[in-house]
Amino acid sequence: MTQVIVLNGGSSSGKSGIARCLQAVLPGPWLALGTDTLVEAMPASMQTSDGGIGFAPDGEVTVGPEFRTLEAAWLEGIAAMARAGARVIVDEVFLGGAESQQRWRKALGELQVLWVGVRCDAAVAAGREVARGDRIIGMAASQAELVHRGVAYDLEVDTAHAESMACARTIAAHVE
Amino acid sequence: MTQVIVLNGGSSSGKSGIARCLQAVLPGPWLALGTDTLVEAMPASMQTSDGGIGFAPDGEVTVGPEFRTLEAAWLEGIAAMARAGARVIVDEVFLGGAESQQRWRKALGELQVLWVGVRCDAAVAAGREVARGDRIIGMAASQAELVHRGVAYDLEVDTAHAESMACARTIAAHVE
Amino acid sequence: MTQVIVLNGGSSSGKSGIARCLQAVLPGPWLALGTDTLVEAMPASMQTSDGGIGFAPDGEVTVGPEFRTLEAAWLEGIAAMARAGARVIVDEVFLGGAESQQRWRKALGELQVLWVGVRCDAAVAAGREVARGDRIIGMAASQAELVHRGVAYDLEVDTAHAESMACARTIAAHVE
Amino acid sequence: MTQVIVLNGGSSSGKSGIARCLQAVLPGPWLALGTDTLVEAMPASMQTSDGGIGFAPDGEVTVGPEFRTLEAAWLEGIAAMARAGARVIVDEVFLGGAESQQRWRKALGELQVLWVGVRCDAAVAAGREVARGDRIIGMAASQAELVHRGVAYDLEVDTAHAESMACARTIAAHVE
Repeated sequence: MTQVIVLNGGSSSGKSGIARCLQAVLPGPWLALGTDTLVEAMPASMQTSDGGIGFAPDGEVTVGPEFRTLEAAWLEGIAAMARAGARVIVDEVFLGGAESQQRWRKALGELQVLWVGVRCDAAVAAGREVARGDRIIGMAASQAELVHRGVAYDLEVDTAHAESMACARTIAAHVE
Repeated sequence: MTQVIVLNGGSSSGKSGIARCLQAVLPGPWLALGTDTLVEAMPASMQTSDGGIGFAPDGEVTVGPEFRTLEAAWLEGIAAMARAGARVIVDEVFLGGAESQQRWRKALGELQVLWVGVRCDAAVAAGREVARGDRIIGMAASQAELVHRGVAYDLEVDTAHAESMACARTIAAHVE
Repeated sequence: MTQVIVLNGGSSSGKSGIARCLQAVLPGPWLALGTDTLVEAMPASMQTSDGGIGFAPDGEVTVGPEFRTLEAAWLEGIAAMARAGARVIVDEVFLGGAESQQRWRKALGELQVLWVGVRCDAAVAAGREVARGDRIIGMAASQAELVHRGVAYDLEVDTAHAESMACARTIAAHVE
Repeated sequence: MTQVIVLNGGSSSGKSGIARCLQAVLPGPWLALGTDTLVEAMPASMQTSDGGIGFAPDGEVTVGPEFRTLEAAWLEGIAAMARAGARVIVDEVFLGGAESQQRWRKALGELQVLWVGVRCDAAVAAGREVARGDRIIGMAASQAELVHRGVAYDLEVDTAHAESMACARTIAAHVE
């Protein structure tokens, strides 16, 4: 039985929309948690500090050692929720590509995970970033390819060519 | 010179995204105001009262006499902003179709207006409503056709077949 | 009959909370609009540009010529709404003190206005700014005194010493 | 060393504001997570279903078996985060009073916990609920006393008589 669905994609690629559609179409209740939840849980001061999260003028995001420490504990917590019986959709941005996946693999251990790549053409994602109006401009383009480098998936969806709901149905068909 | 752009479409058809893209691509600053702004400005009690806004279980939205009174003054105010020199993008839901347009026509008077229909297939809009997660389910399907009945446009865009940014560029090409 | 209530106070002084309480306690529906509404209606690009809104590292806010142009039209629009019969609560930050009030006086003309100063000790407002977590740190302290310089009020309330609801009731007693 | 701070109080008692102030004044980074985080992570359908969360017309909140199942896993996850080294501020509403505390005690096990009661007079909390404008009216009054029944605290703060920042400093003085 699938216990965790990891959705990995760049900013404005449509992960959160797919997560909400998955919650609507999958049988039984699933929790949806992700990078945004973690960032909101962190002290406001970490959102601009050297040890926390940095935003370059071109939208590049970097994270420091304090972010990594809290993130490591966060991963353990998500894994513990799944072990305790909650089915979890994780909405993630693998800034480190394969290395980020490795951190999740280690934390999730023996849990049954469905790894999903959420692709979106950089130009399309950049347009959606403007349309949503609540993100730092440049993140979408900066992350579109970066987050998929060396990452292995069970399946991939492309939100430039399919609606969130259609992507969710494709993913749901792979959930056991 | 175009002074007002009226975007009319159902809930979750993508009007607000187009409005933000228009603000990004049009030369000079434009204000973006709309039904959502008006509803937020109203007393919380009107969002569930007979005289205010009603939501049927199937997502149908009805508005009462107190809503209409404030809305009439709101229309006059938007028109006055445009007359005073602000260029305004209005993001609207013509629940009354042609009748709603007539109210706007009367308020906008001699101003140069570009009337834009924002179409989106009902099923697609309903999927996006689930994906965004902040709207009452059923509104998108209920309004998809309704709001366009008898309304005359200078141009129409279809967000089921084009991205918000592409729609914005199409509209911008008609702005004088 | 009072047609417009202008609430003027610094960031995190509690104006919006008082506005919502006023909407709840005043007989009849009132619209609540303000600086935040205007800023959200502006293009995202103006929130960091020289012509738009600037935020200094210490929280000081400055506005440029493009902001002033749109704001002038906004004032005319609010006045037109009131003339058209909507009663309006304006939630404002007079960055220019008496000069800002003069701009509003001119736009509101013959309308019956209740001018209300919303005071809050700078240190208290600064603490609330941290507690709310959605404002740039330093704005509260920077604006606490500044916005009241030379401004004439019909009454003043102090949110460091009274709850929003109590302030609203005090104000409501002065509404005709 | 204190590993978890549990803030328990009714809706609109000021817990989240205190949590943000604590993050600002405590040395080192703390995560702030709570009931609101959990509810947002749940499927939208659970926010109105029999198995999920129910809102009575008077603001009373009830939760069903599906909510309890996900919540139990959530508690395990928070505990795991703390065991993995993250220091966590939990912002909670003990709808079940002493029974809710017992669930947390069991999940947190050997962890060093500071139990904090966040009190606020029901009438004051009800006024703040109107002022914030984003909560179902009645929750504040319904929960003000209820959530503290039989709960044992290390210290209590009262937001009707002290600002969030002052409460945070009082709590911080008890953190080891």
